Amino acid sequence: MDSGKPAVFTSSGDTSSKRKPKAARLINDALPPADLECDLVIVFDTESGSVPKEKKTTEVIEDSFKLLLTELVNAGFCFKVRVNKPGSVFIFVKASDAVVSFASYRSQIKDWLFGIRTSAPVIPASQDKLDDDFSTAERLRLVHDRLTNSQKDHGLGITPGQSDWVFVKSIFALHDPQFNVAWIERWSTKWALDDDELDIIKNSFGEKIALYFAFLQYYFSGLLFPTVMGLLAFFFLPPYSPIFAIISSLWCCVFIESWKHREVELAVKWGVRGCSGLDTHRATFKGESERADPVTGALVQYYPPWKRVVKQFTAIPTALAAGLILMGVQAVVFVIEIFLSEIYDGPLKQYLVFLPTALLATLVPTFTAFYNIIATRMTDWENHVTERTYDTAMTQKMFVLNFLTSYMGLFLSSYVYLPFGHLIAPNMDFISATMERVIGEKASAKNFTINSHRLRQQYIYFTATAQLINFFVETLLPYIQRRAFKEAKKLQEKVTGAYEQVFKDDEIEAPFLARVRAEADFSDYIVGDDYREMVVQFGYLSLFATVWPLAPLFSFINNWFELRGDAVKICLDTKRPIPGKAETIGPWLNNLIFLTWLGSLTTSSLVSMYRFSATEPDCSYLVSSRPWVLLAAVLLSEHAYFVARYLIRLIYDALDSTVVQKHQRQKYLNRQQTLKRSLPDEEPIETLDHEETVVTEAKPDEWRAAIAKAVATLQTSLVKNEADKKEE
Amino acid sequence: MDSGKPAVFTSSGDTSSKRKPKAARLINDALPPADLECDLVIVFDTESGSVPKEKKTTEVIEDSFKLLLTELVNAGFCFKVRVNKPGSVFIFVKASDAVVSFASYRSQIKDWLFGIRTSAPVIPASQDKLDDDFSTAERLRLVHDRLTNSQKDHGLGITPGQSDWVFVKSIFALHDPQFNVAWIERWSTKWALDDDELDIIKNSFGEKIALYFAFLQYYFSGLLFPTVMGLLAFFFLPPYSPIFAIISSLWCCVFIESWKHREVELAVKWGVRGCSGLDTHRATFKGESERADPVTGALVQYYPPWKRVVKQFTAIPTALAAGLILMGVQAVVFVIEIFLSEIYDGPLKQYLVFLPTALLATLVPTFTAFYNIIATRMTDWENHVTERTYDTAMTQKMFVLNFLTSYMGLFLSSYVYLPFGHLIAPNMDFISATMERVIGEKASAKNFTINSHRLRQQYIYFTATAQLINFFVETLLPYIQRRAFKEAKKLQEKVTGAYEQVFKDDEIEAPFLARVRAEADFSDYIVGDDYREMVVQFGYLSLFATVWPLAPLFSFINNWFELRGDAVKICLDTKRPIPGKAETIGPWLNNLIFLTWLGSLTTSSLVSMYRFSATEPDCSYLVSSRPWVLLAAVLLSEHAYFVARYLIRLIYDALDSTVVQKHQRQKYLNRQQTLKRSLPDEEPIETLDHEETVVTEAKPDEWRAAIAKAVATLQTSLVKNEADKKEE
Repeated sequence: MDSGKPAVFTSSGDTSSKRKPKAARLINDALPPADLECDLVIVFDTESGSVPKEKKTTEVIEDSFKLLLTELVNAGFCFKVRVNKPGSVFIFVKASDAVVSFASYRSQIKDWLFGIRTSAPVIPASQDKLDDDFSTAERLRLVHDRLTNSQKDHGLGITPGQSDWVFVKSIFALHDPQFNVAWIERWSTKWALDDDELDIIKNSFGEKIALYFAFLQYYFSGLLFPTVMGLLAFFFLPPYSPIFAIISSLWCCVFIESWKHREVELAVKWGVRGCSGLDTHRATFKGESERADPVTGALVQYYPPWKRVVKQFTAIPTALAAGLILMGVQAVVFVIEIFLSEIYDGPLKQYLVFLPTALLATLVPTFTAFYNIIATRMTDWENHVTERTYDTAMTQKMFVLNFLTSYMGLFLSSYVYLPFGHLIAPNMDFISATMERVIGEKASAKNFTINSHRLRQQYIYFTATAQLINFFVETLLPYIQRRAFKEAKKLQEKVTGAYEQVFKDDEIEAPFLARVRAEADFSDYIVGDDYREMVVQFGYLSLFATVWPLAPLFSFINNWFELRGDAVKICLDTKRPIPGKAETIGPWLNNLIFLTWLGSLTTSSLVSMYRFSATEPDCSYLVSSRPWVLLAAVLLSEHAYFVARYLIRLIYDALDSTVVQKHQRQKYLNRQQTLKRSLPDEEPIETLDHEETVVTEAKPDEWRAAIAKAVATLQTSLVKNEADKKEE
Repeated sequence: MDSGKPAVFTSSGDTSSKRKPKAARLINDALPPADLECDLVIVFDTESGSVPKEKKTTEVIEDSFKLLLTELVNAGFCFKVRVNKPGSVFIFVKASDAVVSFASYRSQIKDWLFGIRTSAPVIPASQDKLDDDFSTAERLRLVHDRLTNSQKDHGLGITPGQSDWVFVKSIFALHDPQFNVAWIERWSTKWALDDDELDIIKNSFGEKIALYFAFLQYYFSGLLFPTVMGLLAFFFLPPYSPIFAIISSLWCCVFIESWKHREVELAVKWGVRGCSGLDTHRATFKGESERADPVTGALVQYYPPWKRVVKQFTAIPTALAAGLILMGVQAVVFVIEIFLSEIYDGPLKQYLVFLPTALLATLVPTFTAFYNIIATRMTDWENHVTERTYDTAMTQKMFVLNFLTSYMGLFLSSYVYLPFGHLIAPNMDFISATMERVIGEKASAKNFTINSHRLRQQYIYFTATAQLINFFVETLLPYIQRRAFKEAKKLQEKVTGAYEQVFKDDEIEAPFLARVRAEADFSDYIVGDDYREMVVQFGYLSLFATVWPLAPLFSFINNWFELRGDAVKICLDTKRPIPGKAETIGPWLNNLIFLTWLGSLTTSSLVSMYRFSATEPDCSYLVSSRPWVLLAAVLLSEHAYFVARYLIRLIYDALDSTVVQKHQRQKYLNRQQTLKRSLPDEEPIETLDHEETVVTEAKPDEWRAAIAKAVATLQTSLVKNEADKKEE
C-alpha cells in the first residue's frame, strides 16, 4: 500500500475481498485514497517539544512548518497535509521512484565500498521506475534514512524533537493492512516458520525484525530436544539427576554454536554480512576535534576511544552498586516473607502475607525505572559514534539489571536459604522479641522449619505461571487498554464538543484518517524487549533446568504462542517498525554464552548440593556435600563445559556451510570480473588456468647439446662410483 | 649473489673487501663464477631413493636425468651440471627474469582473487627485467614454487624422492655470504632488532623467518618487565608471594594480546594478511572423489572434512596413552631417584646415583622418537589438503609430548612428591626389604625426609642450567661436529684415494664448489623447532614463575643470545631456508594461550599450597592449606584470569591500530578506484560526496501553492486549538 504496488506474497492477499477473515476483524483495513498514498507520515505537533509557551507564536510555528515543507520539496518529496487534532497535523510524505532509485544506488555504492556487497553496484535501468522486486522494506528504509540521517550520511537530518525540529513529534510508517491480515491468517495455520516466510517478513519489515523471528523460530525448534529429555527425566530419573544436567548443558552449547552458523547463513543470504561495520552516525555524537576518517578519508568528528573506554569502566561500580541494593531489597523482603509465613502467628497474618509480594511489586519496578534513567545518562555520556555501539552499551547495562531481577530470588533460595536457613532460625528469636514489644503479642518462633520445596516452587512459578501471566500482559492487555482508551476518548470528545464538526474530514478520507490517528498513538515496537524476554527464559533453562525438568516443556509451549503473539503485537499494538539491517543478534549472543557458562557452575553445584537430600525431605540441613566436593564438582563441570564448547566449535568450523561457500564463490567471481575489466586484453587470466610455455631464448639445438653435456658429466660421476664399489 | 644483483642492505656490504671481519672468518664466502650463478641447486643422487639396486641401471638413471632436464628447459630454466661426488651431481638452476616476472604476476593475481592484495595486480613494465626492488626472497620463493608445486598449483611437481623424482635428493638455495657476513656483523653491535632489520630479513629469508625473529625480539623486550619484577620479588618479597604471582600472570596475558596486534600489524605491513587462507596443496593428498572447488570452481580432489575430524579425534586417546607411559617412566625413575639418594645406603651408591639421569636420558628421547613416528603416521593418515593444516596438526601432536617431557617432572614434584611424599616413606620399608634380600646388605630406610627444596632446585635446573647447556648444544655443537666431520672426511678421502684427481674441479670453480658441497650437507632449518624452544620457555615462566622469581632474568639473558645464536645457526649450520609467507605464528599462539591459562591454575595452587610452609623448612607436611581453600583459590584465580583477558582484549580492540586502519583505507580506495573504472562516466561518485538536488517534476509555482495550502490546514488546527483553550 505505501509503495503503491502489490505485496510480496500472493496466496491470500485478496482474502479480505471475499470473506472477512478472523484477523481482519481486529485490523482496521481502511485503505488510503490515491491522494494520500504515502511512504511515511510526519506528525507535526505544536503541543510537543520543549519550547516555552510564550515562544510558540503562530509565526514561529508557521516558519518551522514552512522550513520542513521546503526541505521536503527540495529533496524531491511530495506531501499532503491533513489535520490530526487541535494543534497537530499529519504530513503524508511520498518519495518519487527517482528519489528512491538514486538513494538505493548510493546505498549500494556505500555497501560495495565497505565490502558488504559482493557484486558491483547496478546502475538502475530506469531512473524513474523501480524494479518490481524492489522490496517495501528497502523502500521504507531508504526513505526514512533520507529524512532522518544526518547530512554527513546524506539525510535531511530531521530528528524529532531536536534543534530545528522541535515540533516534529514523530516520523512513522503506516501498516499495510492487507499484508498484515494475510500474514496472521497464514501463521494461524502453520506449525513453523520456513525460510520463505522469513523472506516475506524481511521484505516487509526489514532484516532486523526478520532476524528476531528467525531466532525465535530456531530457538523454538531447538527446545524440542530438551523438552523431550525433560519429560523423560521427569518420569524416569531422580530429582537433580546429573544425567539430565549434562544433557541440558550440552544442548545449550550446541544451540548457541549452531545458531551462530545459522545467523551467518541468513546474513549471507540476505546480503547484509558485514553491515555491522557500517552504521549511521548518532545525531547527538559530539567530537572533541575534527580529523580525517582513517578509512574513507572524509573529515569527521573525532572522540578519543580511550576516553570512552575509561568512561565505560565506570559502569562496573554502578552495576555492582545496583546489584547490592537489589540484593538488599530482595534479602529484606525474603526475611520478612519467611518471618511472616513460617514464624509470625500474630494478628493480621492473613493480610500481612501479601506484604512481601506487594513490596517487591512496587520496589523492583521503581528501582528498574531509576536504574534505566542512570543507565541512559551514562550511555549518553559515553558519547557513542554509532547507534549500534550505543545500543550494545545500553543493552549490556540493562541486562545486568534483568539478570538480577530475574534470577536473584532463585540464587538466594539455592545458595542462602536452603544451605544456611538453619542458621537464621536462632536469630529469629530476636526479631520475634522485637515484634512482641511492638505489637504486644507473642510470636511463635519455635516451629521454624526450612521449606525444602521452596526452590522448586519458586522455579515453577517463574517458568510456568509467570510466563503465562506475562503472555497475557504482553498481548491482550494492550488491546484491552486501547479499547478502553478509545471508549474513554469518545466519551471525552462528547463532553468537550465534537471536533469532527470543525475539521470535517473528507468523507472518502475519513476511515483512513481514523486509522492513521490510531496508529499515531501506538507505541514503537522495540525488538530488544522481545529478545530480552527470550534470553531471560533461556537463562532459566541454562541455570536451573535441573531443579524441574518440565521447564523446557513450558517454554516450548510458551514460545509457540510467543511467535504468533509477537506477530499480532506488531500488527495490532505497535507502529509499523522502520526496517533496519542486522546481521547478528549482537549483544544478546554474548548474553546467551554468558548464561550457558554460568549454567555450568550453577547446575553442577545444585546437583552436588541437593542430589541426595532431595530424596529425604525431612533433612533439615539440605546441603549433602562437603565444601571441597562442591568446589571440585564446580571446577570439573566448568572445564568440561569449556572442552565441550571448544570441540563443538571445532566440528562446526570443519563442516563448512554451503551458503557461506557460495558467498565466497561470489566474491571470487566478482574479483575475477573486476580483474578482467581492468586488464588491457583478456588473455592473462585465461592462460592462468593452463600450463603456459615460456619460450626460452636459446634454440632447441643448443639445449640438446647442453643436455648431452650434462649427461656426460653424470656419466663421469657414475663411472667413478662403479670403480669405487669394485675397489671395496 | 643468487639473484645476480646487489644485496638489499648497503652499509656494510663491502666490508669483506676491506678487512676480514670476525663473522667472515667463519663463513665460506667463495662467490660463484658468472657461469654458475643460480637460484637453486638440485642434488641428483643415484644413491638416494628407495629404488631396488637391480633397477638402478645406467639407462634408468639417465632417462630420469634427461626427463628432469627437459622439464627444466620446457619451463624456461637455464641449468649447469657439476659433479658433487661419486654417483651424484649438482644441477645449478637459474630462472630468467621473464620466468620470474610471469610467476610474480600470476602470484599477484592469485593473491588479489583471494583478497590478500588490496591493490590490483601490476602488469610488469618490462617482461624481461625485474624491478630493482624485487626482493631476493620473493624471487627464491617463486622459483622454488615453480619447481616443486603440483601442476594444479602451476608448478613442475618436482618433489624430492617422490614418484618420477626418486633420484632428486634435495632442492636447496645457496647462502649469500656477503649478506650473511654483514648481517651477523651488524647484529653483534646492535642491542635490539628494529623494523628495518626485520624488513631486511624478510627480503632475504621471507616472511616466515622474519616473523620468527620479530616474535623472538618482541618476546625478548617483553621479558624486561617480569625480569625487573622478578628481581624486586626476589629481594623484597617472601617466597611464593601472591603479588608476584598476580603480576606475572597479568604480564602473560598482556604479552599475548599485544603480540596478536603486533602480528596483524606486521602481516598488513608485509602484505601477507589473509595468506593463511591460500595455501598450496600437499603432493601426497588423496581425495575420495573429484568435485568443483566451492570458491574457485576448479575441479579439485575432495575428501570429506568430517572423516578428517573423526580421524583427528583418535589423537586424544593416543596422547593420553603417551602421557600415561611417560608419566609411568617418570614416576618410576622418580621413585628410584628418591630411594637411591635419600634411603639407599648400600654398595655402589656413588655410581647408582647417576642411574635415574641415565635412565631418563635414554628412555625419554627413545620414546619421543617413537612418538614422533606415530604422530607422523597419524597426521599423514588424516590426509590434509594443505601444508598449513598438516603442520598445525603435527605441531599440536608434538606439543603434547613437549609439554609432558618439559613440565612433568615439575608437576610431579609440586603435586605428588611434596604434598604426598610423607605417604611414600612407609612403603619404602618394603622396597628396602626387597633390596636387602637381593643385595644382601641393609639399606637404611629410617632417615627418609622430604627434600623441601626439590621443586626449586629442579626449576632452577630447567630455567638456568638447562638453557645454558641447550644453547651450547644448539649453536656450538653443530659447528664442532661439522669441523670434526670435515677432518674425518679428509682423512677418509686420503685413505680411499683422492677423488679430486678424477673429477678435477675447474680451478676457478673449485672454492665455490667446495662451499656448495658443504652447504648440501647442512641440515634444513626448521623454524618450528625454534618456536618450540621459546614456547616451552614461556611455559616455565607462566606455570612456575612463582617458584623462583629470577627465572625471567635468565630467560631474558638467554634470549639475547638466542636471537643472535639463531641468526648464526642459519648462516653457518643450516641450508638457506626457502622463503615462505606467514601472517601468524599460528598454532604456537594457541599453545601460548593454553600455557597462560594453565598458569592461572598452577600459580594459584602453588601459592596457596606453599606460601606458609616455605618459610618453615622443617615442616614435613608441606601443604599448608586445606583442600577446599586450595580449590577456592584455583577457582578464583582462573576466573580472575578470564576477566583480565577479556578486559585486556577489550582495551586492545578499542585502540585501533593505525597500520590496520591504513590497510582498510587502502582497501577502500581500491574499491573506489575499481568502481570509478566500472562506471560509464565518473560523475556518480563525485556527486556522492555532495548534496545532490533531485529536480522534482512539479514547477516552483505549484509547490508554493501546495505549501500555502498546507499552512492553511495548519492554521485551521491552530485556531481550533486556541478556541479550545479559551473554552477551558
